[in-house]
Amino acid sequence: MNDQTELLVCIKCRSGQQMAKDSRRSGQALFDTLTQLDRPAGLRVTAVECLQNCDHGCTVALRGGARWTYVYGNVDENADPAMILNGAAQYLATADGIIPWRERPEHFKRNCVARIPPLEVPHV
Amino acid sequence: MNDQTELLVCIKCRSGQQMAKDSRRSGQALFDTLTQLDRPAGLRVTAVECLQNCDHGCTVALRGGARWTYVYGNVDENADPAMILNGAAQYLATADGIIPWRERPEHFKRNCVARIPPLEVPHV
Repeated sequence: MNDQTELLVCIKCRSGQQMAKDSRRSGQALFDTLTQLDRPAGLRVTAVECLQNCDHGCTVALRGGARWTYVYGNVDENADPAMILNGAAQYLATADGIIPWRERPEHFKRNCVARIPPLEVPHV
Repeated sequence: MNDQTELLVCIKCRSGQQMAKDSRRSGQALFDTLTQLDRPAGLRVTAVECLQNCDHGCTVALRGGARWTYVYGNVDENADPAMILNGAAQYLATADGIIPWRERPEHFKRNCVARIPPLEVPHV
């Protein structure tokens, strides 16, 4: 199921800054860095044109298979790529997407925007 | 595909209020009302124990088939159930989940927490 696991990256995020229309956005910079780093086996990194968390970007989401989908905001495109990939590896290692609280990256604890249950769970 | 379309309702939302441990939460009240009203054919209303948008509840999400998933916060459990169901009907009527902006309920315009692309779209 791991091959379905995705890190979605909003490439339209501006981190709340005014940016010239043709300048490279923070979200695009985040995506570019994430795709250049080594990433966990089985994780696909997908660019998305707007996850609509515009006031609290950069924004990423983790989803895959029978796991809960998690959306995280306030990602720093310079400081946070390695943290995001480490968190993605922890996510991949779970069956349900729920990283135990104590093991969760601090950023994930404080900047979860929303989570969505997996389709496969009839009763949540 | 309509039979897979769901309105997810967080039944743990407290609308930012302190509530006694055993009192009925705002999210539960919202869910109860939504399931008592007539709803669009093909829409399933599903209770979820926490969509983790706790600071801006009540929170609901719409998802289904090849549609984008949308998460909405700041739902008033008393004033908004009919609006939510009308918006769900508009969502159901789309192929991709994207209600044209001008037709979108004002609440949906102003309180979208995040959206997630459908799994079926290879390039977004």
